[in-house]
Amino acid sequence: LYVARDRWDWDQSWVSEAAEEAEAVASISCSGHGRAYPDGLIVEGLPVCECNDCYRGPDCSEFVPDCVVDADSGDPMFLEPFWMKHAASSTIVVPAWHRMSYEFNDGSLISEELKNQILKLHDIIRNANTSGRHIIFGAGATQLLNAAVYALSHDDDPSEARVVASAPYYPVYKEQTELFDSEDFEFSGDTSSWKNDYDPLHSYIELVTSPNNPDGKLRKAVLQGQSVHFIHDLAYYWPHFTAIPAPADENLVLFTLSKLTGHAGSRFGWALVKDEAVYQRMLTYMSLSTYGVPRETQLRVLKLLKVVIEEGEGREIFEFGFQIMSKRWEDIHRIISMSKRFSLQDIGPQFCSFNQGVREASPAFAWLKCEKEEDMDCYNVLKASKIIGREGVMFGAESRFVRLSLVKSQDDFNLLLQRIEKMVRQESNIILEENNEAP
Amino acid sequence: LYVARDRWDWDQSWVSEAAEEAEAVASISCSGHGRAYPDGLIVEGLPVCECNDCYRGPDCSEFVPDCVVDADSGDPMFLEPFWMKHAASSTIVVPAWHRMSYEFNDGSLISEELKNQILKLHDIIRNANTSGRHIIFGAGATQLLNAAVYALSHDDDPSEARVVASAPYYPVYKEQTELFDSEDFEFSGDTSSWKNDYDPLHSYIELVTSPNNPDGKLRKAVLQGQSVHFIHDLAYYWPHFTAIPAPADENLVLFTLSKLTGHAGSRFGWALVKDEAVYQRMLTYMSLSTYGVPRETQLRVLKLLKVVIEEGEGREIFEFGFQIMSKRWEDIHRIISMSKRFSLQDIGPQFCSFNQGVREASPAFAWLKCEKEEDMDCYNVLKASKIIGREGVMFGAESRFVRLSLVKSQDDFNLLLQRIEKMVRQESNIILEENNEAP
Repeated sequence: LYVARDRWDWDQSWVSEAAEEAEAVASISCSGHGRAYPDGLIVEGLPVCECNDCYRGPDCSEFVPDCVVDADSGDPMFLEPFWMKHAASSTIVVPAWHRMSYEFNDGSLISEELKNQILKLHDIIRNANTSGRHIIFGAGATQLLNAAVYALSHDDDPSEARVVASAPYYPVYKEQTELFDSEDFEFSGDTSSWKNDYDPLHSYIELVTSPNNPDGKLRKAVLQGQSVHFIHDLAYYWPHFTAIPAPADENLVLFTLSKLTGHAGSRFGWALVKDEAVYQRMLTYMSLSTYGVPRETQLRVLKLLKVVIEEGEGREIFEFGFQIMSKRWEDIHRIISMSKRFSLQDIGPQFCSFNQGVREASPAFAWLKCEKEEDMDCYNVLKASKIIGREGVMFGAESRFVRLSLVKSQDDFNLLLQRIEKMVRQESNIILEENNEAP
Repeated sequence: LYVARDRWDWDQSWVSEAAEEAEAVASISCSGHGRAYPDGLIVEGLPVCECNDCYRGPDCSEFVPDCVVDADSGDPMFLEPFWMKHAASSTIVVPAWHRMSYEFNDGSLISEELKNQILKLHDIIRNANTSGRHIIFGAGATQLLNAAVYALSHDDDPSEARVVASAPYYPVYKEQTELFDSEDFEFSGDTSSWKNDYDPLHSYIELVTSPNNPDGKLRKAVLQGQSVHFIHDLAYYWPHFTAIPAPADENLVLFTLSKLTGHAGSRFGWALVKDEAVYQRMLTYMSLSTYGVPRETQLRVLKLLKVVIEEGEGREIFEFGFQIMSKRWEDIHRIISMSKRFSLQDIGPQFCSFNQGVREASPAFAWLKCEKEEDMDCYNVLKASKIIGREGVMFGAESRFVRLSLVKSQDDFNLLLQRIEKMVRQESNIILEENNEAP
């Protein structure tokens, strides 16, 4: 095929203005505790530094000693240094005329090239069987979740589908299903309560999260029966966070860019769907709810995934991620294991096909339990020590559990660790004092 | 405030790789009948030309004489030449580390700078009163529409809200409301059927589209009563498409970038909301349905709006848009006015505060009517002449209406005009023949 390369009639320097602006902003120093963005607040002609939690000042160099540490959000900033390192290969230039149309040239809402990169990545990491699957893009796993629930509840069965998940479960499952308040499905709580109470006249949609959010454990579906559909939420099924025993081979699986490259703000996810009719209903949902994922997002994701696939033969980002996450887990685990007041979930070493051997745990979250009888309200126990976690009750669990995020920036994690260490040290002092007071 | 400008420790040339790639792709010639994009299909190392309808060949230079003209989609490609002209000022560079986080630094999902640009633009164009309004971003008006319906139906009134619109209405209103199949609202058809049958025990949500899609007429709300809420869809309330008699001053108005700058593929829209509680419910909806609009999209929109505001003191793009759209309307109007078989909607000249005087019509769509009794199925009448429009029945109107898009590329419009001219010429020939046959 012949591709003409005649020059258009505009000035070749059309990129330079944007390039200079981007370089000027990137060169603003925020002391390693923050960053400036071109769309930030502008003061004296330049955007200001946006500081990490507990840092302030015009260049983020002032540490705020008694600040509250926020370990609530699963904000995957731990991967930012990887992208700083690969700045040159991962930057995109977007001219204003880039894909203004509603659709791609084939009438779809999906970049065929991006689709191919995603399939290629799964083949390298071997975390999902992609053969014979349809692929759909959405605004993170968030939007795809409801698209899938919609698609699975609109089968031939006229009954209202029961949407269930095994506690502790990701809070959005319940919140989102209840928000949409549909006539076709309703959130029906913990899977275990239906296991022995299974009603074949109802249809069920079981959400299976593996590894699980919050506790990082690999999971299998619980319910069985003809009228049970499954959505496998595999957001964390990447070598950063878990061993990959085998490729997922389920009917409908969800992935999100957030937990793969760390680009949570890009709101990009995808679903791999086996059943043609379910796929078509998901397409209808995407078309009527948002009409697809922005073209600049698809362009950016394509570039990011090319770097992921090319650097270190597709291994570098995962080795980088695993190194950080396993170190963080080791650190927090070492401290908590000295405590009698707190405990963590138990995740043992496991065989991983990506690592070609047994590997240590590296979960995205600590699922912390307050063990003492009087510490029923674990969230407030931590809050008193200036740590904000996410309350166990939101996950359908007891209030003596709290989820602590381990995926944020190094600043955030360091502070969290310090605070936890202080709590555990105080506990030991109290125990020592109690022992000294004993007769 | 002091902003440090020390250089980071990376190579200053980190933008050049992306810049060169973008320039190489932009320099691919597609004969003015297509364009190549970096995320297009790659052949021999370069992306291929993606041709406009009815053009083909590696450089889109071959015209396909008997092809079908697609005037179905409201794809606003007529603005693409404006952005080609302003290439240098409207391009963005997005490094991989740009806003990876789920939230902005203030915890919100919205760029404060972009919000300010939008408010500024409304103040220049004077098409909406922004004072005392909250602003929300969404994936085009599409997502905001359901967010608004959700927020307005979750008031104190426990009854199912009736969602109504005056025919002919934008088909998505019905399709989307039915898709979500909520227990809290249901699509209830044409507003006029409820005007005299108003039930004060029910709550109503009236969708008011002004100017209206499909017919371009300025509209006011129809229903009155305590339990009536309004959503004003002002997607086309820009000087490209209509006179602006006065700023909209409604409780909840929707706008979309698609019809302002032509970036339909960016899926960006915003709502201006007066009521605090409604705003909060819309925020909840955005948070649980998609968790906000991608950061790269917000960055791009910010840049585009800066160009819109700065070029010609905020007038250039609108003068450009009006010139094209009024010329297209004049052209199609001149041809159809020679026909007895077809007619167009009637939009007279009107006072416009932006033009500071009376101006001619420049609607986004032709709302074509087949006048002959036997031409009940107007869609197929046009299809027989190789024109694809959108069927009137989809708008809640008779099948003798068809919507034809006037906002696509100049190639698309030229072809549409040729086909219509041919139809009208055939009609005159037939009439001449009939007259000759008469005794």
